[in-house]
Amino acid sequence: MSVRYPAHRFTVTARDPATRARAGVLETPHGAVETPAFVLCATRGALKAATMEEARSLGATLVLGNTYHLMLAPGAEAVGRLGGLARMTGWHGPTLTDSGGFQIFSMGHGGVAAEIKGSRSGTPAPTLIRIDEQGATFRSYLDGSVHQLSPEGSLAAQAAIGADLVVVLDECTPFHATRDYVERALARTMRWSRRSLAAFDAAGGRGSAGPQALIGIAGGHVHEDLRRAAAEFVNGEDFFGHAIGDSLGGTREEMHAIVAFQAPLLRPDRPIHLLGIGQVADIWHGVAHGIDTFDCVHPTRIARHGGALVRAGVEDTGGRDHLNLRNARFRDDPRPIEEGCDCPACSSGLSRAYLHHLLKLDELAALLLITRHNIRFMMRLMAAVRAAIAAGRVREEAAAWGVRLG
Amino acid sequence: MSVRYPAHRFTVTARDPATRARAGVLETPHGAVETPAFVLCATRGALKAATMEEARSLGATLVLGNTYHLMLAPGAEAVGRLGGLARMTGWHGPTLTDSGGFQIFSMGHGGVAAEIKGSRSGTPAPTLIRIDEQGATFRSYLDGSVHQLSPEGSLAAQAAIGADLVVVLDECTPFHATRDYVERALARTMRWSRRSLAAFDAAGGRGSAGPQALIGIAGGHVHEDLRRAAAEFVNGEDFFGHAIGDSLGGTREEMHAIVAFQAPLLRPDRPIHLLGIGQVADIWHGVAHGIDTFDCVHPTRIARHGGALVRAGVEDTGGRDHLNLRNARFRDDPRPIEEGCDCPACSSGLSRAYLHHLLKLDELAALLLITRHNIRFMMRLMAAVRAAIAAGRVREEAAAWGVRLG
Repeated sequence: MSVRYPAHRFTVTARDPATRARAGVLETPHGAVETPAFVLCATRGALKAATMEEARSLGATLVLGNTYHLMLAPGAEAVGRLGGLARMTGWHGPTLTDSGGFQIFSMGHGGVAAEIKGSRSGTPAPTLIRIDEQGATFRSYLDGSVHQLSPEGSLAAQAAIGADLVVVLDECTPFHATRDYVERALARTMRWSRRSLAAFDAAGGRGSAGPQALIGIAGGHVHEDLRRAAAEFVNGEDFFGHAIGDSLGGTREEMHAIVAFQAPLLRPDRPIHLLGIGQVADIWHGVAHGIDTFDCVHPTRIARHGGALVRAGVEDTGGRDHLNLRNARFRDDPRPIEEGCDCPACSSGLSRAYLHHLLKLDELAALLLITRHNIRFMMRLMAAVRAAIAAGRVREEAAAWGVRLG
Repeated sequence: MSVRYPAHRFTVTARDPATRARAGVLETPHGAVETPAFVLCATRGALKAATMEEARSLGATLVLGNTYHLMLAPGAEAVGRLGGLARMTGWHGPTLTDSGGFQIFSMGHGGVAAEIKGSRSGTPAPTLIRIDEQGATFRSYLDGSVHQLSPEGSLAAQAAIGADLVVVLDECTPFHATRDYVERALARTMRWSRRSLAAFDAAGGRGSAGPQALIGIAGGHVHEDLRRAAAEFVNGEDFFGHAIGDSLGGTREEMHAIVAFQAPLLRPDRPIHLLGIGQVADIWHGVAHGIDTFDCVHPTRIARHGGALVRAGVEDTGGRDHLNLRNARFRDDPRPIEEGCDCPACSSGLSRAYLHHLLKLDELAALLLITRHNIRFMMRLMAAVRAAIAAGRVREEAAAWGVRLG
């Protein structure tokens, strides 16, 4: 426990001998989280098609709120008046907020929805007005009003929202940014990070729901020397944990390479989060390089389109990590989504044919059931990851999930 | 137990001395239901914003599927192949199907959505092509294809769907129908009912998921002599139970008067269902006149518009049985929907302000949470009704729920 973060602790409890994978416990004022862990996204203060109580019963342990969205509605102060994120939403467990920066920098060119963050284009988002030393100026997507977000303002908002883990404001540079631009942005993000630490201390390290801990972001785009410089920078500052951010390249392979390069450069005594990544193969790859926590809307987003996560290798998924239950081939398929799955849909014997029927009629129940399956799938995946680390069998278990680690 | 219905039984266990209210147990092949009971509508094979598992955990005991919808998609035979309604949907408990007639006769003039069934207009629905001695000919609302529904066809579809309780095809006449038309329709419904009994016997009284029991419908529109004739008719046939159907008038008062008139004319040894009615005051009134089961989409439908059921008399609801949480007055209201409610939303401390926030953003979680509250509210209401009957205090308890029984 550090002086700055007396109420938080990260302890490594097991290591896989053949990879850099590690298991641990992340203790927060709202409870402990076993790592590696998958973080559910409660973007605007709610999961997309499940209640917090349901998420808990499915095994969820850590929830992320988006500062950008919560600032605009209902407002960070309003969240604080309702007891902070964990209490307001009925989650009552460990929470994390991002800085708000990612939405500001990506909104308007579809970047938020991109699977690989690098697929965002290099043109400024229509809602982003200006980035300068002070921070970012942007328009609300809700009503067009103009807002500013500075490092200090982000931390003040995050203090009001009251998550256990808060994140410094960084500039997430576009994939097509020049190296020169990325270099200047990284230098500015470092200055913003020092201001964030100062603001965090000035607020006594507390938010509306108790002590908070600050996560520093390591960027550097696709450039190894900049990734190294960013890692050295965050290692040298008194952050509680780190997150790998910024553009992660233009392909999944590039993202894996960046994670494989930068994660080992980060201090091993602090937890490492990988921002916005969460497909099955990405999780096994990230874990193998030392990532402790992941967040991604993938499992809940694909549910909206009838996508149900299944283990690759067990069933032909055409290279994806899910079945598209809207497909006519499931019309008479009496099998559950996945044999042996203990989610509410599979364990009560619901057939693919029934889910296909509900999807064809746009019945909300399809979304509810597939979302529950997908959340439970991710929690089973993370339990398998942790068990694999404890058993020293990460490569073998990844292979059993259809993922070959390089 | 009758010869025709060896696997079903209805037993009255308590009576209120001051009203005709009675409590009982309705035994079916898929389990027993304590009455009075509220039936949740799984119109197209799913509840609108809850899974069957959730409904069960909220106290639901009996679920209704709409034969009309299930015939069109996924098809009655498809439901049968997936094990029947209870198994296909993961409900695994007692179920009821209607005949399919109500949708055919009302679809196209908004009648399905009308609170009081009498508010349907007298013009034929655009999708209804013809009613004759054989049955009804109509167009599918899904693809415009032409279908026929005869008494025998309805029972065959209901056998494939496989609910525990099935209902004869009746003609539900429009509120504005002439007395002459109603009289002829009622006579035809009686002939259809005898054909239904014959078809039921010919099928051995079994559906895809086991033995079924047949419910006869007592109509008669707003005319007391026809209501009496219809009651005498169903009493004299070997139905397992009865339902009060047909137009129930143009106002809530008229509906109450029809129920008060006809329910006491029905045989007291058979359960009595009131079709499509389920507001709080209507349930207390119906119970007081001997109704055993109710079905209505009201609790789940109002949830879609932010309507959360609360006890009248405890809070000012402007004469309604619910609060409209979209209203700006709830923006900063830190209270739960209802103090002391044990639903997932209220018991985890979710505030009206939070639900208001989610509703404003059209977040699905609002619908999920309010739906759970409303289902739980109905189950608490029915438990209070049963306890009031057991205690012989129906009038007093109704008053405590803000309902004055005449």
